[in-house]
Amino acid sequence: MYNCVVCRYHEVATKGNNRNMFERCLADNIRHLIRGVPGCRVRRIRGRIWIELDGGGDFTDEQLSGLRTALERAFGLESFSPAVRLPVDLAVIRSTAAALAPAAFARLGVTGRPPAFRVRARRSNKHFELTSRDLEIDLVTLLSRSPGVPEFKIDLDAADLTLGCEIRDEFALLFFDTGRAPSGLPVGSNPRVLVLLSGGIDSPVAAWMTMKRGSACDFISFHSSPYTPPETTDKVRGIAAYLNTFQRSGRLHLVNLAAFQRAVRDCCGERFRTVLYRRAMFRIAEQVARATGCKALVTGESLGQVASQTVVNLDTINHAVDILVLRPLIGADKLETIAAAEAIGTFRMSNVQVPDSCTVFSPASPATAVPRQLAEAEERRIPDYGRLLEETIQAIETV
Amino acid sequence: MYNCVVCRYHEVATKGNNRNMFERCLADNIRHLIRGVPGCRVRRIRGRIWIELDGGGDFTDEQLSGLRTALERAFGLESFSPAVRLPVDLAVIRSTAAALAPAAFARLGVTGRPPAFRVRARRSNKHFELTSRDLEIDLVTLLSRSPGVPEFKIDLDAADLTLGCEIRDEFALLFFDTGRAPSGLPVGSNPRVLVLLSGGIDSPVAAWMTMKRGSACDFISFHSSPYTPPETTDKVRGIAAYLNTFQRSGRLHLVNLAAFQRAVRDCCGERFRTVLYRRAMFRIAEQVARATGCKALVTGESLGQVASQTVVNLDTINHAVDILVLRPLIGADKLETIAAAEAIGTFRMSNVQVPDSCTVFSPASPATAVPRQLAEAEERRIPDYGRLLEETIQAIETV
Repeated sequence: MYNCVVCRYHEVATKGNNRNMFERCLADNIRHLIRGVPGCRVRRIRGRIWIELDGGGDFTDEQLSGLRTALERAFGLESFSPAVRLPVDLAVIRSTAAALAPAAFARLGVTGRPPAFRVRARRSNKHFELTSRDLEIDLVTLLSRSPGVPEFKIDLDAADLTLGCEIRDEFALLFFDTGRAPSGLPVGSNPRVLVLLSGGIDSPVAAWMTMKRGSACDFISFHSSPYTPPETTDKVRGIAAYLNTFQRSGRLHLVNLAAFQRAVRDCCGERFRTVLYRRAMFRIAEQVARATGCKALVTGESLGQVASQTVVNLDTINHAVDILVLRPLIGADKLETIAAAEAIGTFRMSNVQVPDSCTVFSPASPATAVPRQLAEAEERRIPDYGRLLEETIQAIETV
Repeated sequence: MYNCVVCRYHEVATKGNNRNMFERCLADNIRHLIRGVPGCRVRRIRGRIWIELDGGGDFTDEQLSGLRTALERAFGLESFSPAVRLPVDLAVIRSTAAALAPAAFARLGVTGRPPAFRVRARRSNKHFELTSRDLEIDLVTLLSRSPGVPEFKIDLDAADLTLGCEIRDEFALLFFDTGRAPSGLPVGSNPRVLVLLSGGIDSPVAAWMTMKRGSACDFISFHSSPYTPPETTDKVRGIAAYLNTFQRSGRLHLVNLAAFQRAVRDCCGERFRTVLYRRAMFRIAEQVARATGCKALVTGESLGQVASQTVVNLDTINHAVDILVLRPLIGADKLETIAAAEAIGTFRMSNVQVPDSCTVFSPASPATAVPRQLAEAEERRIPDYGRLLEETIQAIETV
């Protein structure tokens, strides 16, 4: 019976002059995300986005389920509801509500107690014969004696099931389910950025948060073949592929850092290795970003979490590049990041134990405060530092 | 009856080589935070921190309440419990549990249903006569027939009240309450940083998150007197004072940007004003940071939230300085930040509407993408840009 899905947004609606751009971007992204459900039409009307079947008609359960999965990934969207759009006619509204209700109550399952229920009515059409309050009472009364509707109790604050009813000028709307979308800004409303993606828990969360703030993400990841196994890059490919389900596909650049790491091992102080690796990773990422139109780097760094993430080492690593570096997790605790990774769906993938590039030849006791000048002096001990980086960049594999 | 407070930590305990430094820092911070409760002794013993009265003896309720308020602000701490330390003697443990229980149950208040209760025992002393499991059963049975203890039901998963009991080699421990501390790292375990504090909701949250990751914070705030009222700085003073209750006092530098803003108004394109203001703020903050030993700047910027926070404008603003800039909220939504500000206790202060420096002469339609070169060209149109900044810095008031 559901013949439309109404999509609501919040932050996008606050964008004064540029609101139209943001809304268009959001609608375009929704068209892309729901491409697995053919025959849909996405339209923007008065502060909402509407999804309907091209020729009109009702969605199948399978179509609704596909739309739900897609819309849960639409950054910039607040919530969405499969709904019935119908004429502004109390008799039709009543009969439709009564027809929808049994299935909606049935989806709650059996709990052994009467479900808590409420009606939430909104009436922007002031010519309609009932006020919002009266309409709510009318529909509750109707459903309390409708066939197929179980006994329920009214709870306006903590309902198990809510019937939404909107009375507009041109049409009325009935809906039972409201799905949560991730909110934020639509991907593509900010310029594209390049995420340093490791196999760890943090960087996929940082990527997701950056997408949520409107930037499409490309990915760059470092391995140290033959010192790291093929599983290192397999794992990162899997994570990037999953993150790409939230956006139009971002590229993944795979970089073999082994030759550079051997040079660091052979020429530089052992305790400085991690900082020197990170400076090289940032430099390589900056060059790739410039070449591919990415306007910033993104990392999963968190202040003080490991030796390379002290204020001094972050500064020394940051100073290797001129490009803007975004660190969405810089103020986050590990346990908060783990919880976020679980919610996003990347934790299980990240938690597979595979050696990563940073740990190759890694010292037992890494330096926690390497000043810029010291890092620069260490780098001067590597013959052909520039050529090594250049060769590493030439060998990048992009998928 | 409570003669100690046991303090637990998590991330600090994961710091291999530097664990001792982190623990010492945490204990020192606790000594500072509880200075309002005189006569306490803070000791580190085997992965816990213990607070006791100098001469031994029991804490008063007032002392416990003061300790609770203080420990809720101890970054690096996970949780804490007022406890009774007593001999490893089952008869003493039993009689103490029975003596403590009535007051603990009474603190739950009257709910009209029997409270859910459990005992959680841990026994590291394997010579003790009962296993953990048997001790739990023994104490539950005892309390179920103790005078002053109301009827309760057992719930191991969702208890309203938990009695903790630890049997160690040297002593036993009984406690009912576990308070949450903010976790993270102890303030001072990372270098001091300088927070750009506005009167808004975001920057106090960014400061709090940075303290939570171990960096003590100084503050710098910009006003535009006489275009902004005295309330602008009063508000920021209040917020800084509140944030200082979480750390040893950080300084607040108050900067009058009005003369510079007049020059921007008179010489530069209207749409670029905000970006040019922000570049000047960053430059001034960088000089203050260098002069006062702060190793990074911290801002409340959030990607895409306002015109000056697009990727391009963040890059152009960032490029004005050489110092590391940390942006803990770069990936956060406004609603998430508001929720954090409410939890931290800054929302009410930030939500007072007072004009801020950024909005002075602010354009109706600010540019959302000002490239670096354009900003630099606009700045060259201001005669004596360097001298203006220098004079502004000379006039800084530090409180």
